[in-house]
Amino acid sequence: MSSAPWPALRAIYHVAAPAGELDARVDSLLLEQTVELPRKALRDPFVLGQILGRLAATDEIGPDLYRATIDFPIAATADDPAQFLNVLFGNSSLQTHVELVDFELPKVWPGRTQALPGARFGAEGLRKIVGVTDRAITSTALKPIGLSTARLAELCALFAQGGIDLIKDDHGLANHSFHPFLDRVRACQKAVTDANRATGRSAVYAPNLTGTPTTVLAQLRMAQDEGVGAVMVAPMLLGLPLLAEMVAQHARVPVIGHPSFGGATRIAPAALYGKLFPLYGADATIFANFGGRFAYRKETCGRIARELTAPSLPGLTPTLPMPAGGIKYHQVADVLEFYGRDVILLIGGGLYEAGDDAALRARVEEFVRHVAEFKR
Amino acid sequence: MSSAPWPALRAIYHVAAPAGELDARVDSLLLEQTVELPRKALRDPFVLGQILGRLAATDEIGPDLYRATIDFPIAATADDPAQFLNVLFGNSSLQTHVELVDFELPKVWPGRTQALPGARFGAEGLRKIVGVTDRAITSTALKPIGLSTARLAELCALFAQGGIDLIKDDHGLANHSFHPFLDRVRACQKAVTDANRATGRSAVYAPNLTGTPTTVLAQLRMAQDEGVGAVMVAPMLLGLPLLAEMVAQHARVPVIGHPSFGGATRIAPAALYGKLFPLYGADATIFANFGGRFAYRKETCGRIARELTAPSLPGLTPTLPMPAGGIKYHQVADVLEFYGRDVILLIGGGLYEAGDDAALRARVEEFVRHVAEFKR
Repeated sequence: MSSAPWPALRAIYHVAAPAGELDARVDSLLLEQTVELPRKALRDPFVLGQILGRLAATDEIGPDLYRATIDFPIAATADDPAQFLNVLFGNSSLQTHVELVDFELPKVWPGRTQALPGARFGAEGLRKIVGVTDRAITSTALKPIGLSTARLAELCALFAQGGIDLIKDDHGLANHSFHPFLDRVRACQKAVTDANRATGRSAVYAPNLTGTPTTVLAQLRMAQDEGVGAVMVAPMLLGLPLLAEMVAQHARVPVIGHPSFGGATRIAPAALYGKLFPLYGADATIFANFGGRFAYRKETCGRIARELTAPSLPGLTPTLPMPAGGIKYHQVADVLEFYGRDVILLIGGGLYEAGDDAALRARVEEFVRHVAEFKR
Repeated sequence: MSSAPWPALRAIYHVAAPAGELDARVDSLLLEQTVELPRKALRDPFVLGQILGRLAATDEIGPDLYRATIDFPIAATADDPAQFLNVLFGNSSLQTHVELVDFELPKVWPGRTQALPGARFGAEGLRKIVGVTDRAITSTALKPIGLSTARLAELCALFAQGGIDLIKDDHGLANHSFHPFLDRVRACQKAVTDANRATGRSAVYAPNLTGTPTTVLAQLRMAQDEGVGAVMVAPMLLGLPLLAEMVAQHARVPVIGHPSFGGATRIAPAALYGKLFPLYGADATIFANFGGRFAYRKETCGRIARELTAPSLPGLTPTLPMPAGGIKYHQVADVLEFYGRDVILLIGGGLYEAGDDAALRARVEEFVRHVAEFKR
């Protein structure tokens, strides 16, 4: 393998491809993660030298299946936890022929702890807190949601008295009216403290924090003020960057990661982009257009657009579809024909590849005229 | 279809199953999303009546493929955006035989706007801001990352002069040192404002907000102070709940949703749970154990555990694996044998299904003794 001239984030992907298409797929993957433009639209020497990834190796690992090892300049991550994910597996996560199988960090990356704190307590810190050094740690969950706070505390006492080391909320325990967060944390932490006093052990109660970021950080403060020994979050539900912020700036206790929503891609695109994005508040939603780099079917795009423009969910404001992802300039008419006028036509590479600024300007004006003249 | 006795979140899943296993798979899916316990461990009448979901229908839609329509009490969502996702497709997202294909909200759900704001501006508000009512809206992206701020502003001017309505940052433009957020927003917004003054149009610049929640909210404030007409976020990178909070509480301009990381499940489990979770700061990581409800292979679990306990990434503290997801009581020995003592053994249903509190207490003590006696 060749080595890159800058500290690199090395990503290893499995790419399914008929032999004839391998090079194109790997090159498109490499471009997608940083510059997101066709190679011929790249002119700036800094971009070419310091931003663009480099292919380190491709290895055949099965019939029509390859392992592609690509180095990206760590500088492209901006030492930021969200942008790190984006470089690693942002748009390419949408391409069904690509799987991210592994990644490596540069040996020297001064911005790493700013971007990604890593565990603060780790195995050693956790063991110290539960007072267990020489065996596996035992754990169970308080469940199901819907029990009264008093019953949850009773279970907590039972588990702590019985010798369980780490008693965590079920990840479905939110700030429900029947067991509000602060009441629950107080009652459960008291149950564990009382049991520990009786047993001489150090059982820990770890509440589940969930909600929007401000809510989660407020819950963390409350839980810490109540003296909990650890907390739990589901980073895929809440967003991985929130985990990084919690650990880097706010948490004084160990954090347990829960996998809920970790397989979220198996949401049908019409449900994810057509319903969930607008429900959570997006006024316009970008999604992969048919015929482009991400190859959603026309029918799928139509369903997304219909949900956005005429929501089937009650009480929602109509929003605008923003199909994108490799709309070529000559496809604009087809795209307009398909979506009609209730659309934001997002075209990037298809404009940039026109050439220098004069050519780009001409193509922009043509695109604008084209859209203005379309009536339906 | 039968209708549920409470306002329901109706979720529609595709479930792959050999005919003989359909009922078990659908029932397990129904249990997983709220109570996460075997049916026989459910005793509380409130839980049985007001929390547990109900199967509305199963329809065969192909060979070994079924559509399951399940109603969940909307109360289970706690009117919270993170818990809503969790009820809809939390743990079940990890089961490869399940796909969430659609969902419906109850006609009456007073907590909906608290939980999930929906778009504030929507199609109409967006059209008003860009001043376009009778045709499709044109849009392009500022890219690639790595250009100078001055060059990005120059492109912005070119696009606005050329008649593009909505000019958004590429979603890879983060707070990089070569185009820091505030400088970029100032320069690009000025370019658009100047162009609008010359053309008499209302082109809009929408910067990409990215980072941890506090950073994103700070960027939103800066961008709004600079007078931008819209902003963009990638909710799957940042976390959908942050989008809800932004829209409900902080945004005074339309928000565009970008799909990056929307296909994140195609990250190999060892990379997601073994590397990304600890890198973002988790001290212990829960993942689906072999032989349980989520059926990861033993080899996969071993790789996750090795990454957590002996990180291959430089500078990371060792953390603890927390295998879970249907470890039966009689499997504890096997699990200990496999992971050794560097593990947190999380067992929930396997304890609860013992029976009443006396039986539960006895099983807890047996579990604890078992783990204490295991030496390796």
